[in-house]
Amino acid sequence: MNNILSFFQESTERVEKFLDNRLVYSNVYTDKLTEGMRYSVFAGGKRLRPALVYASYGIFSDNYDYVTPFATAIEVLHTYSLIHDDLPAMDNDNMRRGKPSNHIAFGEAQAILAGDALLTKAFEIMSDYTIAPNIPDNIRVKAVYKLALAAGDLGMIGGQYADIAAEGRKPVAELVKFIHKNKTAALIECAVYLGGIAGGANDKQIDQLISFGKYAGLAFQVIDDILDITSSSETLGKNVQKDINSHKATYPAVYSLEGAKQKAEQYINKACKSLEIFGDKADMLLSIAKFIMERKS
Amino acid sequence: MNNILSFFQESTERVEKFLDNRLVYSNVYTDKLTEGMRYSVFAGGKRLRPALVYASYGIFSDNYDYVTPFATAIEVLHTYSLIHDDLPAMDNDNMRRGKPSNHIAFGEAQAILAGDALLTKAFEIMSDYTIAPNIPDNIRVKAVYKLALAAGDLGMIGGQYADIAAEGRKPVAELVKFIHKNKTAALIECAVYLGGIAGGANDKQIDQLISFGKYAGLAFQVIDDILDITSSSETLGKNVQKDINSHKATYPAVYSLEGAKQKAEQYINKACKSLEIFGDKADMLLSIAKFIMERKS
Repeated sequence: MNNILSFFQESTERVEKFLDNRLVYSNVYTDKLTEGMRYSVFAGGKRLRPALVYASYGIFSDNYDYVTPFATAIEVLHTYSLIHDDLPAMDNDNMRRGKPSNHIAFGEAQAILAGDALLTKAFEIMSDYTIAPNIPDNIRVKAVYKLALAAGDLGMIGGQYADIAAEGRKPVAELVKFIHKNKTAALIECAVYLGGIAGGANDKQIDQLISFGKYAGLAFQVIDDILDITSSSETLGKNVQKDINSHKATYPAVYSLEGAKQKAEQYINKACKSLEIFGDKADMLLSIAKFIMERKS
Repeated sequence: MNNILSFFQESTERVEKFLDNRLVYSNVYTDKLTEGMRYSVFAGGKRLRPALVYASYGIFSDNYDYVTPFATAIEVLHTYSLIHDDLPAMDNDNMRRGKPSNHIAFGEAQAILAGDALLTKAFEIMSDYTIAPNIPDNIRVKAVYKLALAAGDLGMIGGQYADIAAEGRKPVAELVKFIHKNKTAALIECAVYLGGIAGGANDKQIDQLISFGKYAGLAFQVIDDILDITSSSETLGKNVQKDINSHKATYPAVYSLEGAKQKAEQYINKACKSLEIFGDKADMLLSIAKFIMERKS
């Protein structure tokens, strides 16, 4: 696991260095807004999505700095989604990554705006043709389009909406899979896609990467559901057993805890199988898949 | 004025036709979310920003369908900003365009998500390289980057944040101009920029268009402030005298009503002067400038 830990560490360093230069205090009227954006962006977290971008890109090249704008953009977008999900009108969570949620620290109005600003910032970073490295325009357009699809009403937001709308109703398998596929897997799929197109993957390779991302993303969310039941608040850095208390549509609620674990295993096996065409070039993606299954937070 | 009214009418028809095909009901789990997005997008409104995209593009070409994705994207983004501005934690407005605000009609959680989804949709539309017309990738990248800058923390969201943060404080000229420049003018400037780059404007022409957009945008917001005081709720389609009641930083609050009118005149004159290099090709942009000054709602 040493190898994967240093890979995560290096991914995080690249992304945080980029962000530190990007999210700067620009004027006295908006300094507090900038502070709120930085608060959530630098709150730690696994940085799983950037690591997936880098690991996917790593199949084709080890010039990792090249893909840092994409790795950063997807992490910034993920951060916005956490800020908005935690809002009182949404999941009403007052704790995130072991700290007060953004709206607890800065108030609700500012948290809404910080989320909006980070969502917009993701597209700003992705399309910034004025800085090095000079990713070709056709790759940038594909990246923006895919990120917008993955994050929007046909992806993550659709899943989050279905999740909230389903609260209190009897969870059924089809609905739970819809939620997980969109709320979580869409963005994880997007991460490996971004690494692939930046690396110059062909259509067949892109298909296999997308398949990996989809199944790894489903496994990730099933494990998330399981940890919400089995983990402590301290280990997880956020409130636990929220899902049960708010009658969320989760895999354990549909399949029981044991059945959910089996589902996660099935998904991760499908994910890993999708990588066979890459041989040992995909070892880091396989390690991340293993990490997704074994994580405790 | 007949000419400009039919221009607005045609702009609106193009954008609404595009949107009707784009915002489709995709599945049973998110139909209600789609309904909420359509509710605000089809609530009427002046469609000023699309008209500005078309009028700016019209300096260079009359093949208006070409630029419809950009005109639509900016209107969709504008709509998201209205939904989020109206939220209880923000301006707390229960009426918009003569109808209940989105969160009154669909609840707060859904309104937040509908706003997020429309913001994301703007970038999806702008980057969609899979549909005709086939706008070149380098133009798309520039368009996405400019829209993200204009709409984000360095533009519209920054202005909206400063606006909320300034409530109840003594308004001073520098702050009010910062708010108006960012909250409103940035997106209007972006609209004419988008028309320009799609039309193939050179750097000098882009500079003049940006100057027009900036000053026309400032004039637009000053007139907005004035109408909030002098108009009736019925004419305006939203609650009036909200600014005074919540001690907003407005031009009338700094310069008095008469002084604000003079400021608007100065701004619009500067805007129109920026268009001189285009001769009568810019007649429609000039008509829109006149419309901005004379509008009653």
